[in-house]
Amino acid sequence: MARRAATEVAQSRSETLDAAVALASVVGLEGLTIGRLAAELEMSKSGLVGRFGSKQRLQLAALEQAAAIFRRTVYEPALAQPPGLPRLTAICDAWLDYLRDPPFPGGCFLTTASVEFDARPGAINQAVKRVMEQWVGALERDARVAIEAGDLPPDTDPKDVAFTLNALSIGANCDFQLRHDPCTLVRARRAMADVLGISP
Amino acid sequence: MARRAATEVAQSRSETLDAAVALASVVGLEGLTIGRLAAELEMSKSGLVGRFGSKQRLQLAALEQAAAIFRRTVYEPALAQPPGLPRLTAICDAWLDYLRDPPFPGGCFLTTASVEFDARPGAINQAVKRVMEQWVGALERDARVAIEAGDLPPDTDPKDVAFTLNALSIGANCDFQLRHDPCTLVRARRAMADVLGISP
Repeated sequence: MARRAATEVAQSRSETLDAAVALASVVGLEGLTIGRLAAELEMSKSGLVGRFGSKQRLQLAALEQAAAIFRRTVYEPALAQPPGLPRLTAICDAWLDYLRDPPFPGGCFLTTASVEFDARPGAINQAVKRVMEQWVGALERDARVAIEAGDLPPDTDPKDVAFTLNALSIGANCDFQLRHDPCTLVRARRAMADVLGISP
Repeated sequence: MARRAATEVAQSRSETLDAAVALASVVGLEGLTIGRLAAELEMSKSGLVGRFGSKQRLQLAALEQAAAIFRRTVYEPALAQPPGLPRLTAICDAWLDYLRDPPFPGGCFLTTASVEFDARPGAINQAVKRVMEQWVGALERDARVAIEAGDLPPDTDPKDVAFTLNALSIGANCDFQLRHDPCTLVRARRAMADVLGISP
């Protein structure tokens, strides 16, 4: 019984965080207040305070949840491919699908959080930085393997590949969310293919 | 005397807007409230209401001012170059300088406003969209001239060039604002040079 209760608590926490992530992707992480989320979930504010403690702890938990959703959607399926160019190609395909039909109503949560907190030092800024660095680091590792395998020119800087793919995706997210023009994602695919030296 | 008074009013309005733009680049356009700006300028709220009418009109005026600052910093100096590749190259150089040392304390104001309002329909969303489309349209015109002049391969899509340069800049802004690593702008320069087929 104790175990069942613990599972239920964890599940309910995760569902609450999914709602928090959805709300923050539209109104921003700063707009994610205990009061707003309580209204959204038709819960009491004190219930949410009991669960998360403070607005900042709620924001940090939502960021962590969003990063886990991103990894599950974009990165983990690509792990079925061998490291290097095949995996980078699979990541780009999954990434563009994610941008086209994001699991967050307001588009890529991490881009929004990054832009929102880049000029505001503090715990959330540090957490966003950590998530971004981990992600760019993963891209860089596969770029390095692709260079060593001869799938990218030997003078390629793997950090350039990681930076450029990430920038193209952030830029595509901004443009697609703003204008909803499917051509945006086609152009992003062509630009990514150029970086990877594969056919678009 | 009447003319002098009008000039003073315009100047004071412009200075107020500069402060509004600086504040919004850090706290976001949504965080730009009459009360916050009044506190920043040590002015009365009623004075600001008299000048701008409403929070939304203040936000729209700040956006317009930011777009004018961007054009003055990045686009107008490049107009000294001939249209096409020389002008695009000058734009990219000025753009990277702007990202390195932005006239707004929180980094590129237009990226921030775009990410903030992309999922929120309304007057600000429409205004951001207009500014972005004008800018990408200007890049596209020069890309078209560069293709016609034979400075870019004949099968290049000028809209791809415009999209990719803009995406790289948005991505570089996000990364540089978050991590303050000067390598970011060097990588962005190399990626832009790749798009334009020029030496980095």
